[in-house]
Amino acid sequence: MDLHILDHRLRVTSISKNGLVNYTYPLIKLIFLRNRTRCKFFSLTETPENYTVVLDEEGFKELQPSEHLQVESSIWLPLNVVSNGNVSSSLQAVGVTKIAKSVIGPLAQQHVSVFMLSTYQTDFILVREKDLSVVISTLEEEFNIYKEVEGESVPVRSQDVSNGLQKNAIQPTVHPVLIPQNQFCVMSLDPDTLPSIATTLIDVLFYSNRFPADLLFTSSSGELWRMVRIGGQPLGFDECGIVAQISQPLADGDISAYYISTFSFDHALVSQTSWH
Amino acid sequence: MDLHILDHRLRVTSISKNGLVNYTYPLIKLIFLRNRTRCKFFSLTETPENYTVVLDEEGFKELQPSEHLQVESSIWLPLNVVSNGNVSSSLQAVGVTKIAKSVIGPLAQQHVSVFMLSTYQTDFILVREKDLSVVISTLEEEFNIYKEVEGESVPVRSQDVSNGLQKNAIQPTVHPVLIPQNQFCVMSLDPDTLPSIATTLIDVLFYSNRFPADLLFTSSSGELWRMVRIGGQPLGFDECGIVAQISQPLADGDISAYYISTFSFDHALVSQTSWH
Repeated sequence: MDLHILDHRLRVTSISKNGLVNYTYPLIKLIFLRNRTRCKFFSLTETPENYTVVLDEEGFKELQPSEHLQVESSIWLPLNVVSNGNVSSSLQAVGVTKIAKSVIGPLAQQHVSVFMLSTYQTDFILVREKDLSVVISTLEEEFNIYKEVEGESVPVRSQDVSNGLQKNAIQPTVHPVLIPQNQFCVMSLDPDTLPSIATTLIDVLFYSNRFPADLLFTSSSGELWRMVRIGGQPLGFDECGIVAQISQPLADGDISAYYISTFSFDHALVSQTSWH
Repeated sequence: MDLHILDHRLRVTSISKNGLVNYTYPLIKLIFLRNRTRCKFFSLTETPENYTVVLDEEGFKELQPSEHLQVESSIWLPLNVVSNGNVSSSLQAVGVTKIAKSVIGPLAQQHVSVFMLSTYQTDFILVREKDLSVVISTLEEEFNIYKEVEGESVPVRSQDVSNGLQKNAIQPTVHPVLIPQNQFCVMSLDPDTLPSIATTLIDVLFYSNRFPADLLFTSSSGELWRMVRIGGQPLGFDECGIVAQISQPLADGDISAYYISTFSFDHALVSQTSWH
């Protein structure tokens, strides 16, 4: 399998619920007017606590500092697992389950903290730029590792294979979990259809707190997902092993799961059919 | 002919060019998400100086006070001339030309200042609420005057017909005019089509300074208009007779013209075909 280090230098930020009004201008630009910005990676996750915005440095320039914006100090790099030259398809279990044993477990053993962003198509594993050499050393046994540089995939090898790799058994903190009653849809949207639903999405994002029942660009299966929120207190960014702790048992059971980290908490989405 | 005093109490405001970022949130709500607000009258005019926003009191509540927002202190009421029970159709000359002699001239003679908002369908003549009794006294000879109250048209008569009407010849200040090279389209848009062009309109309004050539929901005639801007210095709101000064000669020549007042200047639009 191949592991690609994508050519984005990302910032992880949080906008407070009250502060959204002040960030409507840049967010609409980043979401709906892609040709007005040089931002190439953008993710927005709303939770009851805040909005987590992950975006590259070009996009980050659009966010004016304010009391409503929190910024994690590191640069994060997104990793992407590609099997047989294709982005992992969904024939088998999807999401973090596929990469739990090969990526997430080994990184946790090396005390590398990861920030997960599952999407409909693929899973982005964000690691801190400063951890990159440990990441490469850890994963190069199992993966061919490529760094995307201006559209080219350049093979990379560890600079120094003996740079202090540990094989520690991780003893992660056990965090409380919250399981809300909500059911979730996981959708994918063709960018060309974005303009046609812009007012609806703007309404949902900025002016409403409920998703209208008639706006469902659902996956063809119409599958519904239940969520497990991890963390009773905000998790922070330094603890490692949380994703591993959740994804290992799911992988053992071959249960598909999406995993979405946010500024304060982690979230695993598990298909309702494999819920019990 | 009938004159309707519409059931809106309007504020005339101006948002600075730099301040638009801070007002993106309420403006998008007011323009695109009409069911999220109780605002029933909204007008936005961009000029090189600023954005003039005219809106009713419900809409005005959405605009947070700031250094970027200027508010004219009066409440304004919109008047609308209706001929033969129909909103004036465009068989003859359109715009202020039709109402120059019957409304604008007489009001100027009574020193009532007006704020004009021509639209594709009709012309709104805004007068200050405190001037209403003078307006009614002045116009009731020529018009049947109705006040719209909760959807009903209630006939109104002057309370006191002898309340000091003057018949002064007005001697208006002669203001310099500016005639930019731009050509203008006057369009009307079915509200149902608004969502489909929302991203384009948002782009034009908030992120760009030029109208894309391919976005033309033009009038069927495809007529182009030239603009005359009135005022070398901001006009203020107290001088009266400016609209009359411009519209009388156009009416004498039976030349169609739209007339749009903004916070700083007035603007007349004259069809290119009758330009010379």
